[in-house]
Amino acid sequence: MPKIVDHDERRLELVDATWRIIARLGIEGATMREIALEAGFANGALKPYFPTKDTLLTFAFRHVFNRTNGRIREVTAGKAGIPALRAFCVEVLPLDAERVNEARIVVPFWQKAINDPDKAAIHRESMDQWHGAILEYLNEARSQGDVRAAVDDSAIAGHLLNMLLGAQIAAALAPDGQADPGLNGQLEAFLTLLQAGS
Amino acid sequence: MPKIVDHDERRLELVDATWRIIARLGIEGATMREIALEAGFANGALKPYFPTKDTLLTFAFRHVFNRTNGRIREVTAGKAGIPALRAFCVEVLPLDAERVNEARIVVPFWQKAINDPDKAAIHRESMDQWHGAILEYLNEARSQGDVRAAVDDSAIAGHLLNMLLGAQIAAALAPDGQADPGLNGQLEAFLTLLQAGS
Repeated sequence: MPKIVDHDERRLELVDATWRIIARLGIEGATMREIALEAGFANGALKPYFPTKDTLLTFAFRHVFNRTNGRIREVTAGKAGIPALRAFCVEVLPLDAERVNEARIVVPFWQKAINDPDKAAIHRESMDQWHGAILEYLNEARSQGDVRAAVDDSAIAGHLLNMLLGAQIAAALAPDGQADPGLNGQLEAFLTLLQAGS
Repeated sequence: MPKIVDHDERRLELVDATWRIIARLGIEGATMREIALEAGFANGALKPYFPTKDTLLTFAFRHVFNRTNGRIREVTAGKAGIPALRAFCVEVLPLDAERVNEARIVVPFWQKAINDPDKAAIHRESMDQWHGAILEYLNEARSQGDVRAAVDDSAIAGHLLNMLLGAQIAAALAPDGQADPGLNGQLEAFLTLLQAGS
């Protein structure tokens, strides 16, 4: 009987190997050859899965985004308003080693996206989705009377989203890939301002 | 008489040429050869100024940072508290084509910095300097009675700084290098929250 190969499974193995290689050697050092070696693939055996490093990077970015969204679904289940907004932000912020590693994938993806309209569009779609989620939490928070500030919620959502992006850079550039313990305090300070006067 | 060459002047010419090439071809397409061609230098004539593309990128990053600080000094002169904080943020935010171009230099620098401790340290020093400036504006705003919220100012400064970094990514990845008209609204919404209850 022919061996059944789960192609999606193998793609994820390759993404995990890419993580580790990028964390060790940086995006430029992460050649297809190094990634194949790390994943235990023969040189050239990556081609059927990812014809180029670019397709691998895009897949890895989508995977980080989907994985984060999976975690967000879990932690926001049964929550609404401020508690849901807090849980969402905590999942996106690079507060542990796994998410600092994800930041180290995301920053090179952004850099590539500057001159690659398809990648830039993937980024913008992801951000539109998160902007919509934040807006929904803010609407709920207003219904619950937790937010009464006379500010445009769409602007607040955009502001918070930019803060979450900026935190990825701080994390990716921290010494020894350490998570920044101050990020939680930054989030709480913002949530306090948001609820002030309510 | 020998021709007097202003080496700093020529370095800045090269940085300007690098801008244009990176905007057109991306950081990876910006070879030393392309940059020399754009600046009207003979191939190889860049070496005395910048032995590697890496030294050129670091110089360009420092130049963007210094130029931004020069603009900040001008627009904050004679201001304190919230008006100074607003002027500072407006200068850092990528609100026009020049600053969107600067964002397109800064994002590749960050990506390089992930695996280059010296570059990461330059980034962190720059951010520490800005964090200190924001803290000072917040102190002044508290003395003036414009900010009374019971939040940690250091956390608020860190939050705002991350928002300013995130805005660079949004700008660098916007279609056709357009500045985002929503950034001003995001800043004003945040400043409104900051002053609420005062």
